[in-house]
Amino acid sequence: MRVVQKYGGSSVADAESIKRVAKRIVATKQQGHDVVVVISAMGDTTDDLMDLALRVSPQPPPRELDMLLTAGERMSAALLAMAIADQGMHARSLTGSQAGIITTGTHGNARIIDITPGRITKALDEDHIVIVAGFQGVAQDTKDVTTLGRGASDTTAVALAASLGADFCEIYTDVDGVYTADPRIVPSARRIPEISYEEMLEMAACGAKILHLRCVEYARRESVPVHVRSSFSDRPGTWVRDLADLTPADPSQQQEGSLVEQAIISGVAHDRGEAKITIVGVPDKVGEAARIFEAVASTEINIDMIVQNVSAVQTGRTDISFTLPKADGARAVATLNALQDEVGFADVLYDDQIGKVSVVGVGMRSHPGVTAKFFSALAAADVNIEMISTSEIRISVVVSQDDVDRAVAAAHTAFGLDATEQAVVYAGTGR
Amino acid sequence: MRVVQKYGGSSVADAESIKRVAKRIVATKQQGHDVVVVISAMGDTTDDLMDLALRVSPQPPPRELDMLLTAGERMSAALLAMAIADQGMHARSLTGSQAGIITTGTHGNARIIDITPGRITKALDEDHIVIVAGFQGVAQDTKDVTTLGRGASDTTAVALAASLGADFCEIYTDVDGVYTADPRIVPSARRIPEISYEEMLEMAACGAKILHLRCVEYARRESVPVHVRSSFSDRPGTWVRDLADLTPADPSQQQEGSLVEQAIISGVAHDRGEAKITIVGVPDKVGEAARIFEAVASTEINIDMIVQNVSAVQTGRTDISFTLPKADGARAVATLNALQDEVGFADVLYDDQIGKVSVVGVGMRSHPGVTAKFFSALAAADVNIEMISTSEIRISVVVSQDDVDRAVAAAHTAFGLDATEQAVVYAGTGR
Repeated sequence: MRVVQKYGGSSVADAESIKRVAKRIVATKQQGHDVVVVISAMGDTTDDLMDLALRVSPQPPPRELDMLLTAGERMSAALLAMAIADQGMHARSLTGSQAGIITTGTHGNARIIDITPGRITKALDEDHIVIVAGFQGVAQDTKDVTTLGRGASDTTAVALAASLGADFCEIYTDVDGVYTADPRIVPSARRIPEISYEEMLEMAACGAKILHLRCVEYARRESVPVHVRSSFSDRPGTWVRDLADLTPADPSQQQEGSLVEQAIISGVAHDRGEAKITIVGVPDKVGEAARIFEAVASTEINIDMIVQNVSAVQTGRTDISFTLPKADGARAVATLNALQDEVGFADVLYDDQIGKVSVVGVGMRSHPGVTAKFFSALAAADVNIEMISTSEIRISVVVSQDDVDRAVAAAHTAFGLDATEQAVVYAGTGR
Repeated sequence: MRVVQKYGGSSVADAESIKRVAKRIVATKQQGHDVVVVISAMGDTTDDLMDLALRVSPQPPPRELDMLLTAGERMSAALLAMAIADQGMHARSLTGSQAGIITTGTHGNARIIDITPGRITKALDEDHIVIVAGFQGVAQDTKDVTTLGRGASDTTAVALAASLGADFCEIYTDVDGVYTADPRIVPSARRIPEISYEEMLEMAACGAKILHLRCVEYARRESVPVHVRSSFSDRPGTWVRDLADLTPADPSQQQEGSLVEQAIISGVAHDRGEAKITIVGVPDKVGEAARIFEAVASTEINIDMIVQNVSAVQTGRTDISFTLPKADGARAVATLNALQDEVGFADVLYDDQIGKVSVVGVGMRSHPGVTAKFFSALAAADVNIEMISTSEIRISVVVSQDDVDRAVAAAHTAFGLDATEQAVVYAGTGR
């Protein structure tokens, strides 16, 4: 088999961790597999380098920042190769550029265009373990070094797995998989043994931090099975893969109690990183909302949920609310205030004491009543819903930040996800 | 004009130093020059990375060590480019590989084979200051990253200056030039305003640490004028250039008191880094010395001076002494002891309490009596000479380590190099 493994910065924080990870890699190789490893920078290296850059220049040129930051993964890759060699195996470290990771030229946030893994396959043919510096590539046009954005080593790993025709991609991290909810909030949360790409995408978009959105998108597009697991244990983690591999394609088989049958809801995600802006008294005319969101978009702020109230007939005005990352709040408010006279709305309200709670599951496609069950559970827990948005396999609500924990726990229990019910759920009947 | 500047690690030890160096580079650019800068790793970065490597593996593979260590210059290059950009100038950092520095594949001690500076000249054409990571290149065959050996950023700079047709190469360091002797030993030592490649080579080989031997060899071969100066002041330093540019080609003109006329002796160098091995009672037969030195050479130890006594007629045996780096002493003694029975010599003596003192100057070619003057000065200072070796422009003696300071000072005075006599010396008559 051919395996791509990715280890995060916390797994290689110091010399001892590097040696430990090297042992795990060597063990995989000794099972007879071709092994390609994608590695992040050690511990806080990237943050430290960023601090240094800011001490030299308040606004470092992105090209040079990429040149600087990519040194972090280069160092951990070389050190890991040394540690593997020290255990008697051949290893070869490659930078993103050497590994053939061709990207766009957008420094700091480049996208992978193509992978030309000639040097990787040559090294594999020569029975080497290959260590690839994550998070980086080389721009197709300028041949300059690029980075893929923070945390994008996961994406590097999945992209390499696709390009190399790997059987699967293992993402090693400091937790042992994806959970039905954050175990710090819901102690009875269970590890999800397997989950579809679609659900994982929704979970990642709704605040589950374990895998980056782009990584899951890439895995889905290229059909790369991803195994998220802990670098500190040998326990299995969470498999992220095609829906077809999880549940029988024929819905009629769903009642037969297969062990891989899906719960209606796979997990409950939450996100405290957003704020809510409400624009009060917007004239209910064609194009006003567009003008407002064009203005916000022009500042490159990513808006998440949007809700527009039904216009009050007597005033001809409406309220528009949207959520956005807290970090962008001040900028968005300033942009909107500058627009007030032109558009003629009444006020801009800003609230960063909110949280988003989402239930995600492909099961809701075929099971009506999920929304009602979710909202009933929230009501029973005395949680007020401020905004609602849905997709085919997700329901998200915005609630007061103080209510987030209670809302997550209530939903988790209501959909039968608590650990004590695990056996029942997996018998396929207990919902 | 086109200028290559090189800054050492002590010049870019922290964010403040990097900003200071950036100012100097910007000032050079503002004078209208094309500027290419070669940069070392910050402060102790290389040592720190080496320590980290040894914590991971006692014998790190050289390929991976090069991958690791080259990150140091990559970081300082990027940071310097940021600091320059912060001062409003365009700057672009390049790794050795990106700068087109093609080397042999000897990791840790590669040699520059060729330079293909296309990306440098393109950046210069676009009015950028170019920052090149020193000490590194890319292997012609494997395309792997290589290093040129410790301190080889000087060589990178001179090689780039040659390849780019630069008018000269400035080597910035923490002292303001080459001195007639180490000022810590001889307080009256003077900065040498200019010196020939040949003399600089001898000085470097004899312990003057300011420029690396390979760098001077490269400068001589490619006729690159090198200006060694301090990054902490604007004072001129020492120019190293062709002999023809220093003194009139016609010896008859040497008596005319030209300002550039050379002193007989340009400087006094010393080296406490060597030890002396004496092999006692070697059978005075053809081939015995060769067997001994072949054995030592096979351990890749660099031997410096060799002295063989005249054979004592009554015994048919002789003593052979040689000097070598102290670090190699134990290995050489072990090698020789293993050879004792085969060759049949009496004993191996090891002495690391020695020092080498050398006087260097092209003037000695045309001035007889330099040796006598040197030895008289040593005798007057009560310094005993243990070994002697000479070249056309150098006389070296091995003395007891306790006598080194006295020997250097005595020679410095004897050849009229003390600062109070500077005016007289440079009138061309006072020797």
